[in-house]
Amino acid sequence: MSLETFSNPHPQRDYVIEHVVNEFTSVCPKTGQPDFARIRIRYIPGPKCVELKSLKLYLQTFRNKGIFYEDVTNLILHDLVAACSPKWMRVRSRWSTRGGIHSVITADYGERDV
Amino acid sequence: MSLETFSNPHPQRDYVIEHVVNEFTSVCPKTGQPDFARIRIRYIPGPKCVELKSLKLYLQTFRNKGIFYEDVTNLILHDLVAACSPKWMRVRSRWSTRGGIHSVITADYGERDV
Amino acid sequence: MSLETFSNPHPQRDYVIEHVVNEFTSVCPKTGQPDFARIRIRYIPGPKCVELKSLKLYLQTFRNKGIFYEDVTNLILHDLVAACSPKWMRVRSRWSTRGGIHSVITADYGERDV
Amino acid sequence: MSLETFSNPHPQRDYVIEHVVNEFTSVCPKTGQPDFARIRIRYIPGPKCVELKSLKLYLQTFRNKGIFYEDVTNLILHDLVAACSPKWMRVRSRWSTRGGIHSVITADYGERDV
Amino acid sequence: MSLETFSNPHPQRDYVIEHVVNEFTSVCPKTGQPDFARIRIRYIPGPKCVELKSLKLYLQTFRNKGIFYEDVTNLILHDLVAACSPKWMRVRSRWSTRGGIHSVITADYGERDV
Amino acid sequence: MSLETFSNPHPQRDYVIEHVVNEFTSVCPKTGQPDFARIRIRYIPGPKCVELKSLKLYLQTFRNKGIFYEDVTNLILHDLVAACSPKWMRVRSRWSTRGGIHSVITADYGERDV
Amino acid sequence: MSLETFSNPHPQRDYVIEHVVNEFTSVCPKTGQPDFARIRIRYIPGPKCVELKSLKLYLQTFRNKGIFYEDVTNLILHDLVAACSPKWMRVRSRWSTRGGIHSVITADYGERDV
Amino acid sequence: MSLETFSNPHPQRDYVIEHVVNEFTSVCPKTGQPDFARIRIRYIPGPKCVELKSLKLYLQTFRNKGIFYEDVTNLILHDLVAACSPKWMRVRSRWSTRGGIHSVITADYGERDV
Amino acid sequence: MSLETFSNPHPQRDYVIEHVVNEFTSVCPKTGQPDFARIRIRYIPGPKCVELKSLKLYLQTFRNKGIFYEDVTNLILHDLVAACSPKWMRVRSRWSTRGGIHSVITADYGERDV
Amino acid sequence: MSLETFSNPHPQRDYVIEHVVNEFTSVCPKTGQPDFARIRIRYIPGPKCVELKSLKLYLQTFRNKGIFYEDVTNLILHDLVAACSPKWMRVRSRWSTRGGIHSVITADYGERDV
Repeated sequence: MSLETFSNPHPQRDYVIEHVVNEFTSVCPKTGQPDFARIRIRYIPGPKCVELKSLKLYLQTFRNKGIFYEDVTNLILHDLVAACSPKWMRVRSRWSTRGGIHSVITADYGERDV
Repeated sequence: MSLETFSNPHPQRDYVIEHVVNEFTSVCPKTGQPDFARIRIRYIPGPKCVELKSLKLYLQTFRNKGIFYEDVTNLILHDLVAACSPKWMRVRSRWSTRGGIHSVITADYGERDV
Repeated sequence: MSLETFSNPHPQRDYVIEHVVNEFTSVCPKTGQPDFARIRIRYIPGPKCVELKSLKLYLQTFRNKGIFYEDVTNLILHDLVAACSPKWMRVRSRWSTRGGIHSVITADYGERDV
Repeated sequence: MSLETFSNPHPQRDYVIEHVVNEFTSVCPKTGQPDFARIRIRYIPGPKCVELKSLKLYLQTFRNKGIFYEDVTNLILHDLVAACSPKWMRVRSRWSTRGGIHSVITADYGERDV
Repeated sequence: MSLETFSNPHPQRDYVIEHVVNEFTSVCPKTGQPDFARIRIRYIPGPKCVELKSLKLYLQTFRNKGIFYEDVTNLILHDLVAACSPKWMRVRSRWSTRGGIHSVITADYGERDV
Repeated sequence: MSLETFSNPHPQRDYVIEHVVNEFTSVCPKTGQPDFARIRIRYIPGPKCVELKSLKLYLQTFRNKGIFYEDVTNLILHDLVAACSPKWMRVRSRWSTRGGIHSVITADYGERDV
Repeated sequence: MSLETFSNPHPQRDYVIEHVVNEFTSVCPKTGQPDFARIRIRYIPGPKCVELKSLKLYLQTFRNKGIFYEDVTNLILHDLVAACSPKWMRVRSRWSTRGGIHSVITADYGERDV
Repeated sequence: MSLETFSNPHPQRDYVIEHVVNEFTSVCPKTGQPDFARIRIRYIPGPKCVELKSLKLYLQTFRNKGIFYEDVTNLILHDLVAACSPKWMRVRSRWSTRGGIHSVITADYGERDV
Repeated sequence: MSLETFSNPHPQRDYVIEHVVNEFTSVCPKTGQPDFARIRIRYIPGPKCVELKSLKLYLQTFRNKGIFYEDVTNLILHDLVAACSPKWMRVRSRWSTRGGIHSVITADYGERDV
Repeated sequence: MSLETFSNPHPQRDYVIEHVVNEFTSVCPKTGQPDFARIRIRYIPGPKCVELKSLKLYLQTFRNKGIFYEDVTNLILHDLVAACSPKWMRVRSRWSTRGGIHSVITADYGERDV
């Protein structure tokens, strides 16, 4: 599943796009049990913006994949940066409670937030 | 529908005006389906302030227009800046969930926030 | 995956057991897209109680199954009733928003609630 | 736009289906201004269930129609009852604030609730 | 200010209309201080429904009137019943905190609730 | 401090008066430590209503009194019933957390609630 | 640890006492892992009331005990009924999430609730 | 109605005083309809502090005055600064929804916040 | 009642201690009526930490004392600073609504927050 | 119980890991009574990350240990820093209400937050 993009329609101005995905699920590589997360993606677009439907399908490719929290977060950041070359991007994943603990992983590309 | 303004009654002081519009709707140009959003406009007025009723009517002109999230946000910012020449303005749109994802677009004109 | 049970440790008294499952997911048979739900199960045990870990694994069998909301709800009710012969049971599923609509399905076995 | 239905897959048992529509909009016939509402539909299906996508499209037909709160509510109830012959149905509409007042209209068909 | 009504458009069916007024204010006859309340009106219409704009204007007539909580509630109920002859009506007023106490007054006309 | 009353201005109709007191405090007779509570009083007035200011002052008489939760609740109910002869009255006290436990005491006079 | 009681100070009237314990913990007999719960106890006292401090200490005896949800709930009900012979009692335990599922167990002694 | 003040009892230290007024009402000069707002005043006192009761009475003078949002906010700031010469002051007004839009106006005197 | 302290067990590191007191009460020196507040104390300990039980008893000494909001806040700050010589301390008091207004007073000692 | 770690899978980028533990309990060394807390750990990993299951087991070792709030917080920070050499770490503990007061302790290692 490849991420699709479209040309930033307002490249002359820095602005922030945020997508919040409430329905992310993957599989714990250790236990084989499903994990659930809310993924928040914020970025200042460069030349291209991420197309929403392909983002949804891209995130669904994790559904039956065994992968750790840290890897999910950094991998999504990596793939999105590769796809759309943003000026700045932050990916945050907030995971369901496991053993009385819930975790949040936050990774940034570039320097600026709004 | 043209945006109307009135003279800033307190031009000697920088202050912030915020309007939150809970009832924005437009149409997705791809699917033809209606979109719904909450629009928040914040600005420091320059010589003129945006008149509230004309703002409401201006925003209603999007009701049956096919337009993308990013364009709505930047277009509103553009039109309001053109109408009232603020010292600073921020427009934020928060969109209803589509396919388990909701989006927020934020665009600024000028440099300052309070 | 079979549902396991254990003997009701307090059969001389009617009491209510409730399990709330926040992490249910299945697949829409029409679109092939994943669905997400919160499942609430309440029952008055008869001779047997549902074992929690087997309940979790049983619900995970829906993960990649194409099935409608109404069928999920009635099927879970059917399987649990078959497994533990409760005096009364209610299954409620609350589904994620699709096209601006979210749905809740509620099915009962037997007559009494507390 | 006609409402579509499908055969009740579990007719041997009374159960409750609820659809909550957060994105309803129509037009006030007096002022020409848009109205916004949340519509909640609950019913016990008889021989047929309402198909979700056609429900969404049916509700969108009100988008540019001038119609009062009471009429919206009773008309939706009427059309749904005609389409699927439920054993019981309740339609509730909750409207956005107008002049500091918000309204809720509730209409039932038949006698039973769960 | 007289309350206006319109013919119940669906007299063949009992249904419930609710109006919630967040911006009610009157004056305490003892202290001369303003009082603030939220007024909730629910009724099953008989031959006539209360027109919303005239309801708003009617409630504004209390703005500078010295009147007690109990009287406000019963008077609104009395006037609305006289205006529209409902099958059932309930008026509830919830008042702002005074001296660490807030009060709620509830009065009914007729017997039925939904 | 005596409780004062005034004549029920609407004795021809049963209606419900509720007073919620967020600022009640007394002293634990065992430990000498202060206790804090929210007191909710609901009643259907008979010939007389409780005057709000005297209610406030009456409740302040508990400020430095050593008295148990159950006694506070039943004593307030007793004193209010003696003062105003209601058709029905309920007093509920919700106490601050002590040792990880908070308590709620509810006592009724007469039979009816709304 | 024995539960202590004191004489019901208001035996002539049925009233309801509720204690909510936010800090209950025991141990899962299967996994050896700690469990956490909120316990809510409601009762209409008969001749005796449960003394709060001894209730706290009684509940602490479960801290390192291996015991199932259903047994905790029914055992607390049993011990409290034995200690104070209430007219009616309900014990409800709400447990922390385990494997994405949280559970609530509710057991009653006698027939009446308020 | 004149604003009264008292000597700052702790002039040797910068500290912040905040008053939140939930019950502000004025009149729209255009429509003649009442407006409602929550006013928040924060300041670092200079030589004098605003007396609370006179603040309440001062704000009540707007009750039947026709005045715009921006003017209310800047006028309150102006009058309070004139009365008590604070080191810093911020006045924020948050207005009830009108036509689906609510507004917030924020004006500052001086440079510092805490 | 004197404030007690204990030696800072981790003096080699700056860290922040916060105590939130929900049950503060004093008396208004003007009206003689009780006031209620939530007091929040935050500090970076120097050589000593405030002992919690003595803090509770110290705050109870205000129970029947006539004292203004600003004085309570600055006096607590003064006494705590004198008792434990913190590197930084902030005291905030949030008072119950009086006449539709609630107040928050915030005073700092030293320069740093975390 | 020793804390286990794994190699930071993305050492080339600074990112933030947060674990929130809702089920922490220890014992008050003064009174012998159980304490309950929510522990929040945030860090930027250096060469190693803390393994979640060993973190859970490590935190359970406090269950029957007599230890003060400040010591718990600083000790956890110390042990985690020793185990995984983070670039930055913050540990915050929020404790259950005792005597109407709840406390929050926050300690940092290193300089940076995100």
